[in-house]
Formats: sequence, C-alpha cells, structure tokens
Amino acid sequence: MAGLSTRHLLGIKDLNRADIELIFETADTFKSVLNRPIKKVPSLRDVTIANIFFENSTRTRLSFELAEKRLSADVINFAASSSSVSKGETLIDTVNNILAMKVDMVVMRHPYAGAGIFLSKHVKAQIVNAGDGAHEHPTQALLDAFSIREKYGDVAGKKVVIVGDILHSRVALSNILCLKQLGAEVMVCGPTTLIPKYIGSLGVKVEHNLIKALNWCDVANMLRIQLERQDIKYFPSLREYTMLFGLNKTILDSLDKEITVMHPGPINRGVEITSDVADSKQSIILDQVENGVAVRMAVLYLLAGQTPTI
Amino acid sequence: MAGLSTRHLLGIKDLNRADIELIFETADTFKSVLNRPIKKVPSLRDVTIANIFFENSTRTRLSFELAEKRLSADVINFAASSSSVSKGETLIDTVNNILAMKVDMVVMRHPYAGAGIFLSKHVKAQIVNAGDGAHEHPTQALLDAFSIREKYGDVAGKKVVIVGDILHSRVALSNILCLKQLGAEVMVCGPTTLIPKYIGSLGVKVEHNLIKALNWCDVANMLRIQLERQDIKYFPSLREYTMLFGLNKTILDSLDKEITVMHPGPINRGVEITSDVADSKQSIILDQVENGVAVRMAVLYLLAGQTPTI
Amino acid sequence: MAGLSTRHLLGIKDLNRADIELIFETADTFKSVLNRPIKKVPSLRDVTIANIFFENSTRTRLSFELAEKRLSADVINFAASSSSVSKGETLIDTVNNILAMKVDMVVMRHPYAGAGIFLSKHVKAQIVNAGDGAHEHPTQALLDAFSIREKYGDVAGKKVVIVGDILHSRVALSNILCLKQLGAEVMVCGPTTLIPKYIGSLGVKVEHNLIKALNWCDVANMLRIQLERQDIKYFPSLREYTMLFGLNKTILDSLDKEITVMHPGPINRGVEITSDVADSKQSIILDQVENGVAVRMAVLYLLAGQTPTI
Repeated sequence: MAGLSTRHLLGIKDLNRADIELIFETADTFKSVLNRPIKKVPSLRDVTIANIFFENSTRTRLSFELAEKRLSADVINFAASSSSVSKGETLIDTVNNILAMKVDMVVMRHPYAGAGIFLSKHVKAQIVNAGDGAHEHPTQALLDAFSIREKYGDVAGKKVVIVGDILHSRVALSNILCLKQLGAEVMVCGPTTLIPKYIGSLGVKVEHNLIKALNWCDVANMLRIQLERQDIKYFPSLREYTMLFGLNKTILDSLDKEITVMHPGPINRGVEITSDVADSKQSIILDQVENGVAVRMAVLYLLAGQTPTI
Repeated sequence: MAGLSTRHLLGIKDLNRADIELIFETADTFKSVLNRPIKKVPSLRDVTIANIFFENSTRTRLSFELAEKRLSADVINFAASSSSVSKGETLIDTVNNILAMKVDMVVMRHPYAGAGIFLSKHVKAQIVNAGDGAHEHPTQALLDAFSIREKYGDVAGKKVVIVGDILHSRVALSNILCLKQLGAEVMVCGPTTLIPKYIGSLGVKVEHNLIKALNWCDVANMLRIQLERQDIKYFPSLREYTMLFGLNKTILDSLDKEITVMHPGPINRGVEITSDVADSKQSIILDQVENGVAVRMAVLYLLAGQTPTI
Repeated sequence: MAGLSTRHLLGIKDLNRADIELIFETADTFKSVLNRPIKKVPSLRDVTIANIFFENSTRTRLSFELAEKRLSADVINFAASSSSVSKGETLIDTVNNILAMKVDMVVMRHPYAGAGIFLSKHVKAQIVNAGDGAHEHPTQALLDAFSIREKYGDVAGKKVVIVGDILHSRVALSNILCLKQLGAEVMVCGPTTLIPKYIGSLGVKVEHNLIKALNWCDVANMLRIQLERQDIKYFPSLREYTMLFGLNKTILDSLDKEITVMHPGPINRGVEITSDVADSKQSIILDQVENGVAVRMAVLYLLAGQTPTI
C-alpha cells in the first residue's frame, strides 16, 4: 500500500493531493466502521499516543481521544494550563520527556505557531498538530474538505467562502491550503481589519459583502468568533459583526441557490449563524463532527503505518 | 431475560418496582464479582461511555468510572467548569457532539434540574443522570436502598428518616421516590426553612425534632450539608445546625433501639455526624460506597442490554 | 521467586539492599521491553491502580501512568487541588473510598509528609508513595540510582554529590537513603540555610563550595530550585544562587575529571544548570526519564506479586 509522503502531520502544507485523497479513502472505511455496533478496530494496539494540550479544547481533544481508542491505541492525556507554558522551558521539557518515555505519537495543541514543527525536529515520536496558534489546524481542514466531498462527491471545482476572522484563524489558513490543493475555488469574507494583507498570494478571492459572497458560493464555512479574544484594534462590536456577517434564515432563503452551511464549532448561536440556520437541512455541521472522528482515525492509522519498526 | 422498562436512567421516577428489583438482583451478582481477584467482566466491550460532568464530583465520577472499566467499556471523561456552562450554548453543543461522535451512553452531572431529560430528547445515546441540580440523583438512591436491603433483607416496611437540607437535595428527592416505590415508610427531618412545602404530597412524614425522628426510625440517612452553598435566607448557622440536627454517639446510644446510620458522603465530620458515629458498627457508610460500584455496574449493564443493535 | 520485603513502597526506608537489587534486575527486563516495538506486557491485567495526586505533577504522573498502562493495569486518575486538601477531611474520605471501591493499588502524591504511611495503615490497598511533602520520593531515588548503576556498572563506591535545597527536598532525602543503602559515598552541597542540621547523622559529607564538591564526586545530582517555594528566610536571591551553585560548561570543563550530571527535572535552564550542560554528553538526564518508566514498572510489578489472592 502506498503511504503518506510525510511522517508527521504538522500542517496541510506537508500534504500533497495524493496524501489527502488517501486520507479520505481511509476515512471512508473508518466511517463505515463507526456505524457498526462494534466500532473498535485493533489497528493501533501497542501504539502509545500522548494528547498534549497546552490550550483548552473539549471538542478536538474528545474527537482525537475517541479516534485513538477506537483504533485500540494506549492513550495518555496531558493538559497544561497556559500559565505553565509562560514559564518558558516547558516545551523543551516536553520534548525531552516524550523522547525518553518512548511515546510513539504526540497529538499537540499549542498557543504558539510552529510549536509542532519545533517538536518534530527534536523528538523521534510522530507529531500530529491539533492547532498551533494562528498557524494551522490540519485535521479540521481535512474533515471540512471530507464533508464537502461527502456532500458533493468531489471538492474540485466547488466554490467555498470562509466567513469571519481570517487574520487570527488557523482553521481558515488550513482550509484555504486544503481546498486549493484539491482544486476548489476559495473566497474569504469578513471585515477589512480581519483579512490578512497576504491573502491574495494564496490565490484566494476577497469579498467584504456577505450577500455577494453567499450568492457566489456553493459552500459557506462560517468561522467561530472567539468572543474571548476580541481585540478592539481589529474588531467591530459583536452586534455590528452579526449585522454585517451573521447568517440568518432570511438571508439563506433569499439566495439564488441552495448553499451548504458549515461551522467548525462550537457555535455562538445568534452570532455567526442563527439557530434556525445551524439546525436547517442545508447545514452539515453535525456531519463535520462525525467525520472528524473518522478523518482523525485515518490520519493516525496512516501515520502509524510509517513508524520504523525493528 | 426481562429488561428495564426505560432506555435512560433520568430519575427514580422512570423506574417501576420490578425495574428496581432487577437492578438489585443484577448488582448482587456484580458485587460478588468485585470480591473476586479478577474484578473485570467483558459485558460492555465495544460500548463507549462518556462521563460528562458539568459540576465537580470526585466520588460519583470515580465510582462510575470504576463501574465502566470493570465492565470493559471504553471510557471518555469530560469535565466542564461551571463557567463554560454559563456561556449558554454548551448543552446544545454537547448534544450535537455526542450525537455525532457515536457515543453509546452518557453519564451526566449538570447543575440544572432537567438537563438529562433535555439531553435524552435530543440524542440517540442512552443517558444516565448522575445528578441534575436539586432534582434527582437516581444511582445514589438505588445504592442507598440496596444497602438497606443488604442490611435488613428487605426495604418494604422499614422506617427511614432523611435528615438535613431536604429543600436543595437531589439525594433526598431520589431517596424518597425510591424508598416509597419499595414500600418503606419515609420521614424527613430538618429546619423548617429547609423542608419544601410540597413534601406532604410525596407521602412523607415531617419531623423537626431529631431525637423524635431517630426514635421512630430503623435507618437514619444523614445528608451532607453543602458548606459552600449556604444561603442565609434558609440556613441556620453551622453551629446551630449541628446542635439541633447533628448526630453524635451520646444521642445514638440513648435511643430506644439500635438504628442504622447512612451518609451519602463526603462527610463533614463533626457537622452532620461525629467521627465516632461515622466509624461505629451501626454505620454502613462504607458499604454504601462499595455498593455504589456494583449498583452502577448493574444500571449500565441493564441499559446496555436495551441498545438497539443492527 | 523471592519478592520484596514490603507490601507498600512508602519510602526508601522500607527497602533493604536485596529489595533494591531485585527492583533493578526487574527494571532491566522492563527496559528491554520498552525498546521493543510492542511495549505492553499483560502482567497487571485485572489490577486496578488509582493515581491520586493532591499536588500537581506532570512528569511523575505521566511516568507512572505509562508504567501502569504498559503493564496492562486498569488506571483511574484523580487530581485534587490543594484547596480541597485544606478542608481537612479529605484524606479520611479518600481512605474510605479507596477501601470500599476495591482498588488494588494507590499511587499517591500528597503535600504532607507521612500521608502515604497514614493511608497504608487504614486501607487494604497497596500504597506507592509518589512524593509526600518534604519527606520521601522513593521511585525518584530508585531511578536515579538505577541510572548511576547503568552508567558505571555499580553504585557501590561511587561518589555522589547532591546540590541544592537539601532542607526542603524529598528527592534529596530519598536519594541519600538509597545511595547509602547501596554503598555509595554521598555529599550534599548548598547554602548553609538550605542544609538541615541533622544531615551528619545520615552519614553524609557537607560542602558549601561547589567547585570543591564537583572535584570530589563522580556524579553530581543538581536539584531543581522550586522557584514558587522560595522563602526569603532561607533562600538567597536566584541570581546569587546561580552564581554560587549553578553549573555551567566552563566549570564542568575545568574539573579534574569527567563527572556525570543528573537532574530530576523539570530543569530551570540557566539556574541550576545551563543548557549546554543539560544537553552535553556528560548529562544522563534523559536516561533518568526513560529509566523512570522501567523502574516504576518494576516496583508496581513486584508489589502486585505480593497481593494476597484468594
């Protein structure tokens, strides 16, 4: 069997189109397993995976943990408060510990961009980036693209608009790279202050008018507004944001065609999208969550296939 | 085998007498297993259980987790701080995640009454209520009644007094429902401000004098005073409470007959009961803890038997 | 097979020389297992171990958890904030719960010296002390001595200096007892205020000059300075400490012979030792971490062999 072209999953940047397609085909198989009464497979028996989260994350951590347990891996969880990160030496210590404790894989979320890349250069363990600062969140992008493929049969040629705070979003960056790699057309939409200057260099359209963006697209991925991270320099008031960039049922029904609505979760209902949109049949938000487990199983399974064994 | 009449355990209200007796007989078997060197049974292999605790609970969570692991279930733990609950959307998000991640059972503690009922209407997973606000705590009531049955052979006809803050206690309400269902006589005893007005409608006696209550009963269940939840509106001072409703060895030895002392834990020694009472041979507090694991194994095992499998 | 002379591992005090040698020989075997692709052994299947940490500890907890999972034990984690300890009744409650929940082994860290000893007198479970206040941290001492033995073939006759805050360090006390038991010569080195008065009675040399101490020794164990525990009464400023007792590469290279450098971790790089020392080939710090898992597997395995089974 052909494998992935990379030993780690640090970002979508590491994956070529064949890699992504292999992940999707493998995820197809695991998704069918998850709908059986017996959801567990012995594939990763004797593989030890450490989930190391330097930032809180219920959703992503649970999804990875379920994926790992259904692959029969041994799972170690480590949640570090952000305070301990600020002590400065923690990542080096983490490196040393992981190396010495003979963990096979590390799933890491870290508030600093590049933390996973740094780690991968210093440890033998395989690293899966579960979000590093405002940089990448590759498994989210893979599950998003997988969900589009599931809905439309193919990602190539589809028009996807990503709406929200593009500047600070690792989900946005990973999505753009993944969708472009698969041949989709991508647009970003948000307030001028939240669109990075370099966005044009990624081959992405920019639109500041939500209605125009929605009328252009097949799929709208409505990013979560990080209520706790609002910075007055960049950010309009929440009320203003919702008025200009929030998606409600009236807007959705007024569009020229039936678009598909996505959201990486957790939803701020009434902010990015209203409840009637989130729960409408045009929404594939719950498919995204379900596909998250299958896609993460596929990533872990394919990476484990590359561990050099004696 | 006849099964339970309910797919969820949301409260004692859901159980008829045959259900409770089936749970007790099943718990008898598991209790004998727990006293073998090999405590593990493969009954729930391939069943994934999520323990979702929106309130801190060491004791109940550990008891459920031990029960699940001894049944060979796959266990996912999720502890949410109460702060994240106040964001408002969390329970909906939880619903969606659980549904999509294909978890089979959810054991949930939540600060709001009815949270489990709400959840059970929106997800396919089976819900076990591990305490919802001041509403119900059914597994605690089951293990309490099971411990009385173990002590006396039968619950029917026994006289049980529940002492403490009846108004805010989910343990009290579930105990009353369970004991009445099994044919016991129930009395509550506490300060007037901590006895709810509707208590008469439950077929329960009320007594404000501890000595009289104790002289009436076979079993006294001394509820924990929630030191952190004291509300000056309802509550006497701690010292006053202990003087009027605290049980010490002098009182215990002065009674007309030898009663049995219970406590749901954790004990505030010197408040509800003194150490010499807690550690006396009339106390079955440690039996309650031990029975907790067996009763929870029985509940999970019987509910799992009802999962529709393809 | 001869077993350990103790049912619990509360401190090095409980171990005779034959015990320690048996632990080391068993750890040799487990270390070779950890370097196989399949790291898991079924030795502790059906044994339930509770890791109860009343103090934060990432490193020690992860090491124990990996050891337990690689022995196929069932693992329950319980982390108590130090605030809940101050409520006073917690340890009694813990005792009662452990007893009743039929846990086989308890690995406990506690801020109070003697907590493990107290527990061992009240529960049937076997207790492993993972650090109790300023008292003992026996598995750390065992892995330290095991690492010296691995480096030099034998501990007897080796000269070991322990540098730092000897007064408040459980690592120092356990190391002294273990090294003396195995026939090493031990010296302590640090500011006068951080050397306990009773140190002479342990048969240990005292030296306040770091250079002299290093020139005497074969091995220098550089203790972590607990930045958060500094007490102005005993402690020089951090800058002063580093100037007088910090080890840098210039000092290391100026010594008469090539010594071995150890550190129990996590390192405050630039305080106790500089990065070039920590990462030099004279450092065996990562071997210590790796050996920690093997030594803890050995301890748990040997103790489990003593559980009375029916």
